[in-house]
Amino acid sequence: VGGLNYRQSGVDTVAVADALRSLLAGLTYRAPASSGRPLTQIGHYAGIIRIGRESLAITTDTVGTKVLLAEQMGRWEEVGEDLVAINVNDLSAVGARPAALVDVISVPRADATIFGAIGRGINRGLRAARCSLLGGETAMVPDLVRGTDLGGTAVGFFPQGRRPILGRGIRPGDVLIGLPSRGLHSNGFTLVRKILETQQLDPRDARPGGTVQVGEELLAPTRIYAAAIEAIAQNPSLHGLAHISGGGIRNLLRLHPSRCFVLDAWPPVPPLFQWLAERGELSAEEQYQTFNMGIGFVLAVAARGEDSVIAALRRAGEPGARRIGRVTAGRGVRVPDARVEFASYR
Amino acid sequence: VGGLNYRQSGVDTVAVADALRSLLAGLTYRAPASSGRPLTQIGHYAGIIRIGRESLAITTDTVGTKVLLAEQMGRWEEVGEDLVAINVNDLSAVGARPAALVDVISVPRADATIFGAIGRGINRGLRAARCSLLGGETAMVPDLVRGTDLGGTAVGFFPQGRRPILGRGIRPGDVLIGLPSRGLHSNGFTLVRKILETQQLDPRDARPGGTVQVGEELLAPTRIYAAAIEAIAQNPSLHGLAHISGGGIRNLLRLHPSRCFVLDAWPPVPPLFQWLAERGELSAEEQYQTFNMGIGFVLAVAARGEDSVIAALRRAGEPGARRIGRVTAGRGVRVPDARVEFASYR
Repeated sequence: VGGLNYRQSGVDTVAVADALRSLLAGLTYRAPASSGRPLTQIGHYAGIIRIGRESLAITTDTVGTKVLLAEQMGRWEEVGEDLVAINVNDLSAVGARPAALVDVISVPRADATIFGAIGRGINRGLRAARCSLLGGETAMVPDLVRGTDLGGTAVGFFPQGRRPILGRGIRPGDVLIGLPSRGLHSNGFTLVRKILETQQLDPRDARPGGTVQVGEELLAPTRIYAAAIEAIAQNPSLHGLAHISGGGIRNLLRLHPSRCFVLDAWPPVPPLFQWLAERGELSAEEQYQTFNMGIGFVLAVAARGEDSVIAALRRAGEPGARRIGRVTAGRGVRVPDARVEFASYR
Repeated sequence: VGGLNYRQSGVDTVAVADALRSLLAGLTYRAPASSGRPLTQIGHYAGIIRIGRESLAITTDTVGTKVLLAEQMGRWEEVGEDLVAINVNDLSAVGARPAALVDVISVPRADATIFGAIGRGINRGLRAARCSLLGGETAMVPDLVRGTDLGGTAVGFFPQGRRPILGRGIRPGDVLIGLPSRGLHSNGFTLVRKILETQQLDPRDARPGGTVQVGEELLAPTRIYAAAIEAIAQNPSLHGLAHISGGGIRNLLRLHPSRCFVLDAWPPVPPLFQWLAERGELSAEEQYQTFNMGIGFVLAVAARGEDSVIAALRRAGEPGARRIGRVTAGRGVRVPDARVEFASYR
């Protein structure tokens, strides 16, 4: 039997892309300038709109099927923190400072203990991102959801003198700097659950070499990069930012249509990812397009700015910041050591 | 057997309130002013935050179980429009002008035809609200959702010279002006579906006196009040605004802690609501706290401004705008003709 891939695990990315195209085809209306002026096309990490005298970044995302592992493990703080992290990281990926979050929690039934833990997790995320919770929606909809669906929307802004960073300035010769992830963050869990199920693995057991339950390792909350990005957002050497979320390193292809991202100094892949790859018999392509493989955020920086940016990132709480690759002419993203190459985001 | 109520139909509002309290208890973090300054407590129709030189209103909501009727009827444009309407109406309820929307669609499987119809509905809503779609998230999560969960977040602003309207200026003697709804909008569908089921009613049939399938009547999209509210948002007589959504007329109790809202001129209840009440043997309390009963939006206005506000609303596309009640000293909301009285929002 061959290895698992994301489509076999229940996520048909082709069907989703088709449906999305169909959705977007209907969206022809353009609002008058009196209602604000959008500065981006749909598809960036965050949409940016000029409203009055400010530019705002807005992004929305859900925690996805990681919540099903949270339920199995009876641990909810981590996914609460994820709800904040996945959204504010998408703001950081356009250079915006997080300001406000709203949450959406859809549940089959309301459990005060679970909600309490989710609230504590959200609070931790807000503190890390220096962000305010402005409101939310709780829907008890047993006929509509099987599990606890956690989503949110974050709004950020560009403090005086700062501009959105959309990657258009990335040039051949730029270096790529990586910031470590903490485990899987919030992506790839449909595949993870399939691996656990087909291999009859109990998430309450430790994996070989692991010191805690593998379920706990897998649930580790998504790191929040806001403080690090705040520290370098106005550095003129900074050309591009990528949050390594769903799609793995394919995310780099969102930044520029005609650059090649060569990840020739990828750090050692953490044992958790190696274990998943082995148990799921995952191809290298599958691994690098599903998981973050140890790097949660990537910065494209002019070569002359490499040292100062890495130093600033380390001072801002990212001791693991390091060069992981470089930008060349061409198109695509490559990890030579893993013999992986992608030509398009999706 | 007695009539149905919302708790029996699967929505336990007490459990939801308990869970929400538990969630909020953990949310103790307050962000520094450098991340924006919240101007509201959680619980208004929209949260308002000062960011740089602008005040922004942010709100999030889901269409809820109305999508299950959409699925049954194979009609998706209406709920697409609802996704926009429920959110922009909450912006209108604080006097903000809609600027941007992001959508979240979580599905068990991706269907291009359904997504196309949802997109056309969203587009209609955006046009009515003069709002831009800035992005969205599509999640294919068959283990997490049974049906198509539709949610969104809207961001609005206060054009120069306009202030948030939070109801604090409502005074005894103010008049209450109502704007007609178009059917049920997006609330009460868990109860509606229970009535259809227990009474073995086919939504493809017309109700007595109805000219179209009752399912089509029930799916009519939520009216969007943005144009009307834009027309009067800077009128100094305007003291308060209420979107009659989940909770029905209890929503008025969100506006002011020590006023009584006496709805002594409620217009004739539309036949669709009468039919539901009859078939579900619903108490008057249940009807008025679950459905909008024909009025989708309420304005509290100084008596001296009544005529000018009604005239402006009619010019702005609300020919049905009319006085439906008045504000007195005290606390609560009452519909004397229906012998209904509520003392608290929830």
